[in-house]
This record gives sequence, C-alpha cells and structure tokens, in this order.
Amino acid sequence: MSLESAVLARLAAWRDAPLWRVAYSGGLDSSVLLHLLARAARHHRLPPIRAVHVHHGLQTVADAWPAHCQRFCDELGVALDVQYVRVAPGASQERAAREARYAAFGALMVPGEALLLAQHQNDQAETLLYRLLRGAGVRGLTAMAHSRRLGPGHAVRPLLDVPRKALEAYAADHGLGWVEDPSNSDSGFARNFLRREILPRLADHWPGASAVLARAAAHQAEAQGLLQELADIDLQRSRGRLGVAWLSIPCLDLPMLRQLSEARQRNLLRHWLGDRTRLPDSRHWQGWADLRDAAVDATPVWRLESGELRRHGDQLLWLDAAWGVPWSNQELPWPDARQPLGLPGNGIVRVAGQLPDGRLSIGYRQGGEVLNLPGRGRRDLKRLLQEAGVPEFIRPRLPLLRCDGQVVAVANLPLDPAMGELHWQFSPWLRPVVPD
Amino acid sequence: MSLESAVLARLAAWRDAPLWRVAYSGGLDSSVLLHLLARAARHHRLPPIRAVHVHHGLQTVADAWPAHCQRFCDELGVALDVQYVRVAPGASQERAAREARYAAFGALMVPGEALLLAQHQNDQAETLLYRLLRGAGVRGLTAMAHSRRLGPGHAVRPLLDVPRKALEAYAADHGLGWVEDPSNSDSGFARNFLRREILPRLADHWPGASAVLARAAAHQAEAQGLLQELADIDLQRSRGRLGVAWLSIPCLDLPMLRQLSEARQRNLLRHWLGDRTRLPDSRHWQGWADLRDAAVDATPVWRLESGELRRHGDQLLWLDAAWGVPWSNQELPWPDARQPLGLPGNGIVRVAGQLPDGRLSIGYRQGGEVLNLPGRGRRDLKRLLQEAGVPEFIRPRLPLLRCDGQVVAVANLPLDPAMGELHWQFSPWLRPVVPD
Repeated sequence: MSLESAVLARLAAWRDAPLWRVAYSGGLDSSVLLHLLARAARHHRLPPIRAVHVHHGLQTVADAWPAHCQRFCDELGVALDVQYVRVAPGASQERAAREARYAAFGALMVPGEALLLAQHQNDQAETLLYRLLRGAGVRGLTAMAHSRRLGPGHAVRPLLDVPRKALEAYAADHGLGWVEDPSNSDSGFARNFLRREILPRLADHWPGASAVLARAAAHQAEAQGLLQELADIDLQRSRGRLGVAWLSIPCLDLPMLRQLSEARQRNLLRHWLGDRTRLPDSRHWQGWADLRDAAVDATPVWRLESGELRRHGDQLLWLDAAWGVPWSNQELPWPDARQPLGLPGNGIVRVAGQLPDGRLSIGYRQGGEVLNLPGRGRRDLKRLLQEAGVPEFIRPRLPLLRCDGQVVAVANLPLDPAMGELHWQFSPWLRPVVPD
Repeated sequence: MSLESAVLARLAAWRDAPLWRVAYSGGLDSSVLLHLLARAARHHRLPPIRAVHVHHGLQTVADAWPAHCQRFCDELGVALDVQYVRVAPGASQERAAREARYAAFGALMVPGEALLLAQHQNDQAETLLYRLLRGAGVRGLTAMAHSRRLGPGHAVRPLLDVPRKALEAYAADHGLGWVEDPSNSDSGFARNFLRREILPRLADHWPGASAVLARAAAHQAEAQGLLQELADIDLQRSRGRLGVAWLSIPCLDLPMLRQLSEARQRNLLRHWLGDRTRLPDSRHWQGWADLRDAAVDATPVWRLESGELRRHGDQLLWLDAAWGVPWSNQELPWPDARQPLGLPGNGIVRVAGQLPDGRLSIGYRQGGEVLNLPGRGRRDLKRLLQEAGVPEFIRPRLPLLRCDGQVVAVANLPLDPAMGELHWQFSPWLRPVVPD
C-alpha cells in the first residue's frame, strides 16, 4: 500500500468533514502530510485543505519559518494561517508550548473539522517510553490516540502507524524542503533524550522496535477501554442516591463500593472522577481508605486537586471546587422578591408561588431557628434539615427566606403548600442575568 | 528500614512454610539473600533455610561454582543441594536454561515450601522493558510476580522492590565473595543488552528509572487483575450448555458473547483459554471473527496451538488437542463385556446393567444404522444423535455396542431402561487399569 493510500484509509471516517486542517510546523513530518494531501486532492474528492502554522516565539531561528511555510503552501496552492502565540517561560516549556499551540488551533477550528496532526510511529514509541518513565499506568501508556474530540471537531493522526523512514523516503522522492527545529537536537529535554539516545540504540538491536512499541500502546488502549467497561458496570451498580437530588452532587453508594476489590474501587473512582479532577498516583490513595473506613460519626474528607470527596451516611459525595469558594453569609434584604436574587458566592434564589407579606430578606442559619408550619406546629429547623437529608456540610450555606425576621421558607424544601417556595440554584459564579 | 527488615516484611506471609529454599547461583544477588537470611535466623524464629545451586553445564568457568557455593554455605552453616541439569543447545538457550532450572527446583520442592528467588528491582525493570520490546500486552507487562504458585509450594521474590545498589552495599559491608557469570556481560543476549546498554543510560537521565519501571509493572499487574475480574463477570453471563454434558467439553454461549465489544470478547477468550492454550497476539485474531460470524450451516474451525474452537449451534466449544489425536475406528470384539474395554486412541467403554445375549463388539458409525427400540420402534441412529444434541464432529468417534452385528447401545445415550447402558469415557491416553 502506498503512503497515500494508507493515509487516505486512515482518514476514511473524516471524508465528510467540512475541513481538513493540517497542523504544519514546517518540519519533515507535517511537510510530507501536507504535500501528500494536497496532491491526493487532485485525484480524490477530499474536503477543503488548509494549513495552520503556529509561531511560538521561543527561538530566533523560528522567525524565518512562517515565510518558508507560506512559500511551501503557495506552491501547493493551499491556504495557510499563521498563528502567533506567547509561551510562558518556565520549568515545563514543552508543555506550555503544546498548550499554547492547541489553544491557537482551538481558536480557528470550525464545527466538525478534522485537525490533522503529523505524529508518526516513532513519535508514538517515544511517547510510550516517555510515559513509562514517568510511572504511567494503563491510561498513560495508551500514548497518543489515532483520533480524539478536540473543541468543536476532532484531532486526527493519520500517520501514527507510519515509520519515520517512510516519511523520509517520501520527502526525498518528491524533493521536499523542510525546516529543522534545533530544539529537537537538544538532548536535555527528556523526550529528545529518548529520541536521540535510547530509541536508535533499541532500533539497532530490534529493527522493529518502534512498531512493537506503537503496538504496545495499542494494547494499552484496548485494555483502557476494557477498564472503562468494567468501571461502567460497577458505576451502574453503585449509583448513589441523595435525598436532596436538587443539589446535583454526584454520589455513589458506599456499601456497594466496599464489596469491590481495592483495585476495582480505584478503577471505579478513576473513571468516575476522571473528568472532574486529576487523581493522585497509586501510591497516594491512603486518603481514600481513610475516607471509606472512617467511623460513622466522623466527617472525613479526601481533598483532591479540583474538589473533595466526603461522606453523607451511606453515600460518597463529590464536591467540586465550587463548594469551597468563599461566600458571604450576610443577611441580604430582598425588597423586590418578584426578581431573582444573586447571593455573593452562593448562587441565586427566587420565589415560586405566593409571597408572604412583610419585609423579606435572605439569610443563613445561626442556630435555634424555629418555623411555624400550618398543621404541623412549631418545628426546629435543625430537625427539618435532618429529616430532609440535607448533608451537614451544606446546611450553613442553605439560604433561608425571612419575613420580618422570622424564617418562613428554606431553600428547595417544600414546607407549606399554601406558601411560596424558595428555589435555590447553587453556583459560586452564577449571576441573575435573565429574570424568571 | 534495613534491608533485613524489608526482606523479612516481604516474607511475613511465608513464616509458617516448612522450608525456605534459597535459589543460590553464587552471584551477587542470591549471595546477599542467602547471607542475610542465614544471619536473620540467628535472631528470628524462621523456617529452616536450605540453598540449592543449579549447575547448567553451559560454560567451563561454572564448573568451579559448586565448590565456591559449598564453602559459602559451610561458613553460614546452611545445607546446600547442587543439581546438575542438561540444557538443550538451541536458539533460545536462556529459556531452555530457565526451564531446566525450574525443573530442578521442582524435583526438590516439598509441599508448602517457599522457593526464594533473588531477582531485584533492576531485574524487574529489565523484564518490563524486555517484554515491552516483544510487543507484550498487559499480561506480559506485569513482569515478575512477588509470589506465585510453583509445584507443591510457592516461588517468592523478596528482593523485588530492592534496587541492586542496596545489594551491592550489603555485600561490601559484609565482605561477601561471589562469582561473576561471564554470560551476563555478553550483550548479544537481548536482556543483557538492555541491562548493560539501555538501563544504565536511562538511569543516568532518570535516577529513579528502575523504581519507576518496577512500579509500572505493578500498575500492569493491577490492571491485569481487573481484566480478569471483567472476564469473570462475562464468563458468568456467557456460560454455555451442551446437551451432552458428559462430553465435558468447555463451552460458551455465542449469542451472549456477540453482545460484548470486540475487545471484551478477546479479553473473555484470553482468560477462558489462558490455561488451555497459548493465544495468538492481537494481530492474528481473524480466525475468531471468521468462526463467530460464519453462516449457521458452515462448520468453521479456529485452530490454536493446543486445540481448536468450533461451533455447535449457539455454543462455542473448546476441543483440546486430545480430540485431534488419531484413533482407530476398527470394529473390536468384546468377548468379556464385564470388563472395561480400552479403545485405541478413543478412551474406554464399559457396560452398566444387563448385557445382551450374543456376540458383542464395539464399532463406529458407517451410515444407515437403525436401532430397534422397545416401545419406540425402529429409529435412525442419525436422528437419535441429532435429537440428543451430539455435535456433528463427535459422532464419528462415538462408540456403538453391537450384538451379533446389530447396534444395541450408543455411548452415553440412555435408550432402553431394560437394557444395559454403554458408558464411554473419552481420552486418547486413557487405559483400562482398574476393572470396574
């Protein structure tokens, strides 16, 4: 199979995309990809092809690259966008550069487009080794995906099975010119060290080393998919239920979780929290065991990067960072209670139904509040909240509607059918933009 | 924690073993392990300690090692067994040597003993890399286990978390002598190449490389356990049922299997067949898809190393190599049918219940056989076998009892309650040793 056929086969699923945008650094790999696709477009009905070059401003030599890229694209008759980004200097400049580059891509992307990246088999092998040497588990060792969602479209790597040698041969056959990135030859960078010192030695001894390593990444990707399927089964069984569903707090059933092996609990939590926070590596999960095994009357917390896990009875709750944002518990007058009221750092309230007569305000618990409930007499607020199953740590920020100083409604708690209800939507960033 | 404490902690689960047998090559690692344990035994109540040295007869220099090992053990007051093995020369001499070594261990082992192996963290890192470069998946990348069943006892690796440097330091502190295996310095061997060329370079760049790689192996072991749990769930759901349970042919329910993702089908089959046969790597599973998707009236087969997969209706069957052993379908006279009869290459038959009067023999289908069944009249044998659900490919080797040339009983098929039944136990190697 020719390189062109291989690449087009890999792109078959993206033939109907509104745009194929080639991420074009000016280096060998993306030059070959762009040239190959521009030629293929003469004989095949392909989506429109554009190139994008990101200028990182990190090295003087790179200042000449946009002009080179423009000439190359002009010769191919391909439109080129050049994006100038700023990379924050610092310890992990490679990562910062990558993030800036993806932000630049994201700014251009149109819905459904395929952003084509030129990483090849040797890059995949290198990524696998690099991740391995950072202590990655299965998820990390999946290395780079053939395709993945990115912004409104997809990032696709049609060369991921192609060894660099094949790209070099193509470039020689077609007399292509490309730029050399001098940072690629600096073995001080961890990845470049692998690329220049380790992988060539491995390839000397095992001629198929890159292909084998890329295949190992594919095995890991398959295993990762299976671990996801196992997590889905376990999530289904461990789906929790909070009495106060309106809190929209993700939760799991702790007794079900405890029936799983330790490894399976970790797998479940990794997948449940995967989109919500970064998780510690396997050596730093003591916080989970402490939380799970704490006494019933304890109020344990496992703090993670973007939030924390807590317990409420038999339920395991995920509280994202929003719940930790400072808020003001000052009493707020609410003269026009027909309009929603924004609570600084604590979301928004509105009243549905009849408004009581009197001076209305929103405040919070101070202790000892008593409500007068028609037909139920006087009831302690504390008792009402317990009965409603409102978790302890939520109670201090639960808005109370006061009328002439007396509590007449509690956020999201139906109390008196004849009275208005106080609807509270929690979010520290929510502002009342549209009146109800 | 001292090296001694670390090793004893790792061995805590084996404190009640009847024997700790140290596999002692005479090299640095096992010298340290043996010395450390012999010293620890002076202060702790440990199981009796013995050493075993295997002489492979592969290099002249090694002929001097048994004497060295004997002196070392004498000084420690530890009993030593020296085992002489022959290693078949050939392409994979390392593997042959390992197999011969384990066979020698196995010949000595007593029930419940712990065979202590001195592989350390650097060996684990090297094994991981080696497996990676052979294209291993999760299972292979689990590298070496801390312990596993071996013969009547367990093989245990108490140094697996210990870096080689710590062993070198111990040996220097205690002035230990050891032998150097010159085959260790021959980088022609793949593993030695990794040990001498690759791992030191990685360690220069990442000082913790071995520890990180060993941890990666532990991640893979955890993932492998999870994949096993997923396979167990799926096996439970896909458990097959053959109408002819007496065939003891492992089987799965194909429609259930088809509901799983392709990756999950592979995971299930890998675990189901893991103890039964070696499976091809992920690139050679087309045979599975062909078998699964074949038309109902086809008789597809997927041949594997130690047997084959076939279909019978909705069932997926595993037929081990025994079913492929050639057998004789010659008619065998059975003058004394009170005694079991061995069928060359086809197991053994016996009659339970009443024997018919006449000249008895055992034979096989030739086509067109008809049976006279009391109260059911004359019935085609073909029809009877179909009704009983005997798989097509079993029918030719199903023993038939003939009386004066007329079929009167079919193996394991209850036909006539008044008549004797013909019991057949299939095995190509089975011999009638004990009369029933």
